[in-house]
Amino acid sequence: MILGIDPGLANTGWGIVRTREDDEKMENDYELVACGVLKTKLESTKENGGGADRLGKIYEELEEIIKKYEVKELAYETLFFAKNTSSAIKVSEAIGVIKLCGRNCGLEVFGYTPLQVKMALTGYGRAEKDQIEMMLRSILGLSEGIRPSHASDAVAVALTHGFRLRV
Amino acid sequence: MILGIDPGLANTGWGIVRTREDDEKMENDYELVACGVLKTKLESTKENGGGADRLGKIYEELEEIIKKYEVKELAYETLFFAKNTSSAIKVSEAIGVIKLCGRNCGLEVFGYTPLQVKMALTGYGRAEKDQIEMMLRSILGLSEGIRPSHASDAVAVALTHGFRLRV
Repeated sequence: MILGIDPGLANTGWGIVRTREDDEKMENDYELVACGVLKTKLESTKENGGGADRLGKIYEELEEIIKKYEVKELAYETLFFAKNTSSAIKVSEAIGVIKLCGRNCGLEVFGYTPLQVKMALTGYGRAEKDQIEMMLRSILGLSEGIRPSHASDAVAVALTHGFRLRV
Repeated sequence: MILGIDPGLANTGWGIVRTREDDEKMENDYELVACGVLKTKLESTKENGGGADRLGKIYEELEEIIKKYEVKELAYETLFFAKNTSSAIKVSEAIGVIKLCGRNCGLEVFGYTPLQVKMALTGYGRAEKDQIEMMLRSILGLSEGIRPSHASDAVAVALTHGFRLRV
C-alpha cells in the first residue's frame, strides 16, 4: 500500500494505491484503494501560534488512515516554491508534520517534485492537469476522474512512487 | 516557565526563562533557567524524504525539555523569509513539528517575528546582535553573554513572550 499526499494546511489530499498481485488477472497493475481530502479550518482569528491545532488534526487523521489501510510507504509532493511565501510557509509546516507522522508510523517517506510526478505519469514535464487526469484513469482503470483535485494529485504522487519502485 | 525556540533543522536553539515571584527580593524580574541547542545531523546522503528522522529527533528532544522543566508556554521565532528558499522550507518544516509538539504537550504556542523580538528587547527594530545580547544580560542579571547564538536567540524570544504577557 502506497499513500500519496498532496500537502496543505487547509486541504491535504491523500490517496492510496496498491499493486495488483501477479495472480490477479487484471488489465491494470495498480488499483485505487481509497482517497480523500483532510480539511482543517481556521478556528480562531487570533491564532498567534499559527494553527498548531490544525497541524495536530492533520497528524491525527493521517495516522488513522495509515493504520486503517496498513500503508507501507508514504510519498508526498514537494513544494514548488511560489511567490506567495506566506502560503509556502504554511504548506512547509504541514509537510514537516506529515513527514513526522509517516516516520512515527514506521514508514519510509519519499518526496517528489511536481515535475517528477508529471514525468512519471505522462513522460512530459509540462503536462496539463487533464492529461494527468486521463493517465490516472487509464492506469487505474477508472471510468471517471478522481475528485476533488487535491485527492487526484495525491493519487498521482502515490503512482509516481510506485513506478519508481519498479525501475 | 516560558520556553523560547529559535527554529532550525540542523540547529534548534531553546531557552527557558521564568518570572521571579514577588516575594523574591531580586533586582531582576526574569531568571534564565536553562538553555541549549538541539542538533540534528544529515544521516544519509540519499534522504529522499528530506530528514523525517531529524524532525523526529527535534520533536522528541523538545518533548523531553517541556516535561523536564514543566514548561507552560511556548514562543518561537517566525521565519524571516530569506532568499534561500531551500533553507526556508527546511526551517518551516521544523517549525511545523515544533508547533505540533507544543500543542501535543498542552501548551499554548505563540509566534514572534524577528522585528517583534528586537522591539521587545531594545525598543529598536534595527538593533544589532550585540545590543540584544547586552539587554539579555541586563534583564537576566547575567555576568556573561549566552552562547551559542541559537540559544541566545531562543532566550530572547522567550523574554519577548514574557513581556507581552505583562502588557
